Amino acid sequence: MAKLYLEDLKVGDRFQSGEHLLDAAQIKAFALQFDPQPFHTDEEAAKATFFGGLAASGWHTAALTMKLLVDSGIPLADGIIGSGGELQWPKPTRPGDVLHVVSEVVDITPSRSKPGRAMVTMRCQTRNQRGEVLQYFTPKLVVHSRTATS
Amino acid sequence: MAKLYLEDLKVGDRFQSGEHLLDAAQIKAFALQFDPQPFHTDEEAAKATFFGGLAASGWHTAALTMKLLVDSGIPLADGIIGSGGELQWPKPTRPGDVLHVVSEVVDITPSRSKPGRAMVTMRCQTRNQRGEVLQYFTPKLVVHSRTATS
Repeated sequence: MAKLYLEDLKVGDRFQSGEHLLDAAQIKAFALQFDPQPFHTDEEAAKATFFGGLAASGWHTAALTMKLLVDSGIPLADGIIGSGGELQWPKPTRPGDVLHVVSEVVDITPSRSKPGRAMVTMRCQTRNQRGEVLQYFTPKLVVHSRTATS
Repeated sequence: MAKLYLEDLKVGDRFQSGEHLLDAAQIKAFALQFDPQPFHTDEEAAKATFFGGLAASGWHTAALTMKLLVDSGIPLADGIIGSGGELQWPKPTRPGDVLHVVSEVVDITPSRSKPGRAMVTMRCQTRNQRGEVLQYFTPKLVVHSRTATS
């Protein structure tokens, strides 16, 4: 992919990432390390919970979204540097889901103090193979122009 | 810790987690799997970037925050079940940072359709050993009363 600088971006630009197949083993391994709750670590125990079955930690969905964005999602020359954003998980990510990320530029606000720098707001949807949205994330990214040093 | 239900919570309740010492090896291992960018994976390459040195992926800070919340941060009887929230990383997490999480209940909104259920909004600050805030997160959690089935 071409590596993009600030001057290459405009509101409305869209990007689509490659795919990641998530399975139960990955879900449990992540959860044991970072979110050890029964609905993320044990199929049987998960049945009696709010989720009604094994579900990925939302943070696993978020981390995989980042991996997809870095590898193939948004080709920014200086990398994907976020200060945060609004995060939503409208439905659980399940074993067998194949994730991809669709991203759109929704705002570009040039820095007042730093020439050649802007905050770029993206709207990123993480979807599965049925087009169901598993995560909405609206990050603010720091993006530099071709001539600015990062 | 006592396991808390909806009727045990009120606005203003505060909780503090245990601690997690983060080192460069953990930062690089997480980044190689989920956020493979030079400022997260390589001390030398990181020097010439926006971060000026090795920094943890924001998603690593978020995942460790969740681990601290689950293990010792917010003792909810049915677990910590979030639908998302506003996430901010005001400064980078660095090797050697010792993380802990301070959480406060800021809103409790009973479900209109489901008796015994509420959305509880928390304000969670992830701080290091110097009290610097590395992450703000304001999750909405699903919390059940003692008598409701989850």
